[in-house]
Amino acid sequence: MQSPANGRPAGKELSGLSAIEIHDAIQRGEVTVQQYVEDLIRQHEKRDGEIHAWVHYDKEYIRSQAKALDAVPTEVRGPLHGVAFGIKDIFLTRDMPTRYFSPFHEFDGNGASDSAAVGVLRASGALLLGKTATTELASTMVGGPCVNPRSKGGKSYTPGGSSSGSAAAVADGQVPIALGTQTGGSIVRPGSFCGVWAFKPTWGLVSTEGVSRCSVTCDTVGFFANHVDDLELVARVFRLELDTPERANSIKTPFEVRGARVAMIKTHVWELAKPATRAAWQRARELLVAAGAQVEDVDLPGGFARAHEWREVIAGSEARSAFLSRYLEDKDKLHETLRPFVERRHVPGRDDIIDAHDGIAALRREWDGIAARYDAIVTPSVPGEAPEGLGDTGSAVRTHSPTLHLFL
Amino acid sequence: MQSPANGRPAGKELSGLSAIEIHDAIQRGEVTVQQYVEDLIRQHEKRDGEIHAWVHYDKEYIRSQAKALDAVPTEVRGPLHGVAFGIKDIFLTRDMPTRYFSPFHEFDGNGASDSAAVGVLRASGALLLGKTATTELASTMVGGPCVNPRSKGGKSYTPGGSSSGSAAAVADGQVPIALGTQTGGSIVRPGSFCGVWAFKPTWGLVSTEGVSRCSVTCDTVGFFANHVDDLELVARVFRLELDTPERANSIKTPFEVRGARVAMIKTHVWELAKPATRAAWQRARELLVAAGAQVEDVDLPGGFARAHEWREVIAGSEARSAFLSRYLEDKDKLHETLRPFVERRHVPGRDDIIDAHDGIAALRREWDGIAARYDAIVTPSVPGEAPEGLGDTGSAVRTHSPTLHLFL
Repeated sequence: MQSPANGRPAGKELSGLSAIEIHDAIQRGEVTVQQYVEDLIRQHEKRDGEIHAWVHYDKEYIRSQAKALDAVPTEVRGPLHGVAFGIKDIFLTRDMPTRYFSPFHEFDGNGASDSAAVGVLRASGALLLGKTATTELASTMVGGPCVNPRSKGGKSYTPGGSSSGSAAAVADGQVPIALGTQTGGSIVRPGSFCGVWAFKPTWGLVSTEGVSRCSVTCDTVGFFANHVDDLELVARVFRLELDTPERANSIKTPFEVRGARVAMIKTHVWELAKPATRAAWQRARELLVAAGAQVEDVDLPGGFARAHEWREVIAGSEARSAFLSRYLEDKDKLHETLRPFVERRHVPGRDDIIDAHDGIAALRREWDGIAARYDAIVTPSVPGEAPEGLGDTGSAVRTHSPTLHLFL
Repeated sequence: MQSPANGRPAGKELSGLSAIEIHDAIQRGEVTVQQYVEDLIRQHEKRDGEIHAWVHYDKEYIRSQAKALDAVPTEVRGPLHGVAFGIKDIFLTRDMPTRYFSPFHEFDGNGASDSAAVGVLRASGALLLGKTATTELASTMVGGPCVNPRSKGGKSYTPGGSSSGSAAAVADGQVPIALGTQTGGSIVRPGSFCGVWAFKPTWGLVSTEGVSRCSVTCDTVGFFANHVDDLELVARVFRLELDTPERANSIKTPFEVRGARVAMIKTHVWELAKPATRAAWQRARELLVAAGAQVEDVDLPGGFARAHEWREVIAGSEARSAFLSRYLEDKDKLHETLRPFVERRHVPGRDDIIDAHDGIAALRREWDGIAARYDAIVTPSVPGEAPEGLGDTGSAVRTHSPTLHLFL
């Protein structure tokens, strides 16, 4: 792996390495964090004038962080030492402003302290490159300037939202891993549109303290990466194993596909699936079967047909308290698609809210019964490929996966 | 009401007025916000050397805020114009530091912006007096210097926790209303111990954005006041009506006790109740009957016997992600009673967590069926009066009310 000429792993740009590869190269002394960031900055300069994945990117500050990391003695380095991360611009950071793509926060300074997820990364030795583009308060479907790096034919395609910049920066090779969040499909959708790995952990396993709020029942922190092994590295750092240490250690990793029981669940909105999703579905099925998985097509019981509607009721009713303070401060600075939540023009009544909570609660046990029978579950993330244009990040691209995330 | 001598309502210190009274007096021009805060500051100077309800109290800053509020034209004043609030020191504020009674935040500066609840108060014209005492990260049962203002006989009694200073400041007449939070019983307990009105709204109706996290499923924002009408004022500002505007307006306020269907629910831990709580229970029953309420003693179905245990499982499993970042940064700065959550020494396994979530979910519909039959429900908040001593804010004072709050 080592190239004598410059002390770097040969054959690849450093910016193309996985998080695990760069971490190991740094630990072995083959490359310094300072050398690594110069490659990342070069990739950024070459690309981001076109992609607009970042809203805060301070090259001198990145270099000073890299220098500080290189000075940390090898024996006390964290599991993410020197690994570069992008942070969706709705996570508070003590050394960078957080602006939420919202006029309310246009002049905000640095946070008093880091959000919980950023704190975990920093305490593990990660290098925080900067803040990535999002939609307003991570809650509208209206795109900003950020472009899908896989755009082709001279046209611009949406990266999806609201974790637009995190998915785009990873897909563009500007950073190996990025933090995002999901309330509806804001992790799975941009991950799919940009063609990178997207990981939405079980709700509640990563703290959302210091992250902007849309819906307390649905907001979930997650990650994007170009290499699936990197997601496992992040999962270990965030201690995402649900079980006691003894039992967690007995889980086979890497996941053994041969003999695994895999459920493929089209959900109740499969009729929205376009040819690209139908083809991907068929291909996934063939690959799983060829690898020796026991694939089973599973239809969800009828109660799940309302899960999507119930999610909308719950998220909509919670959006009201999420946006109230800004609405009272100056409603004209709140996007016109968000004002109706506070004004209750979209919002259902008390009976509907109780019905939605009770309905979801009743499905919980049913879902746990289904999930317990399988090692893995496959569902569609999006109806099709990323649409052309930047104005709409995905209003028409709903499936049941975001709804199922209430149970996952 | 008006005293010609000084332009103030006669007969009371301004610091003894309710929020509604002071608001009306200010609106009528009988008193200025600047005059009002001088009385509050006087009460603070007289009392807080003994009570220690406040951890941040800047007299000059209070005076400058009061001056700015007096300059606001009458016709554009908010519904809380000039009403003083205490803020538990776990809510981010853009003009005061937030320290969480934790060594991790000892040197933190001001927040980049206000927490959502503080933003609602400020946009409504409230005067934020300062930050009130809490236990470490609002999560331990270990008291600080804050003393229950109703201490007697030369002894110090705990104000309860973790919203210690908010309840104490209100009980002590230093401020008419204060913000607190509850994960277990941190609103109802200090409210009861300090003898003030405590209001924990339905979970999710007040945003916890910008508030320290212990358990995403349980953390709830609430309020303390000396006058129950003041809680209704706050409820209106936070738009706590659950229903559509048309239906919400049809709800009778003030609450009509005569003819109201009231359930009195002792819960499954009634055997913990001490003589003071048993006497208060009996007295409440007599008062309700005398006022013409249809009082019914209701036993909860057997499934609710496990609700307390399930709440502990859920809150315990979520505390792990809440404290992970600080643990990784420097575990010695995290209180020894909080470290085991991250180390999973207290924490149950995956099956127990799923069982708890499914169990609570199954009770939801059952609870909604019970609650729908009554206009009001009475449950005990604490086993008895505040214990003597400041070391323990309430570890032994659990009842089912905090657990029922999952459903309320």
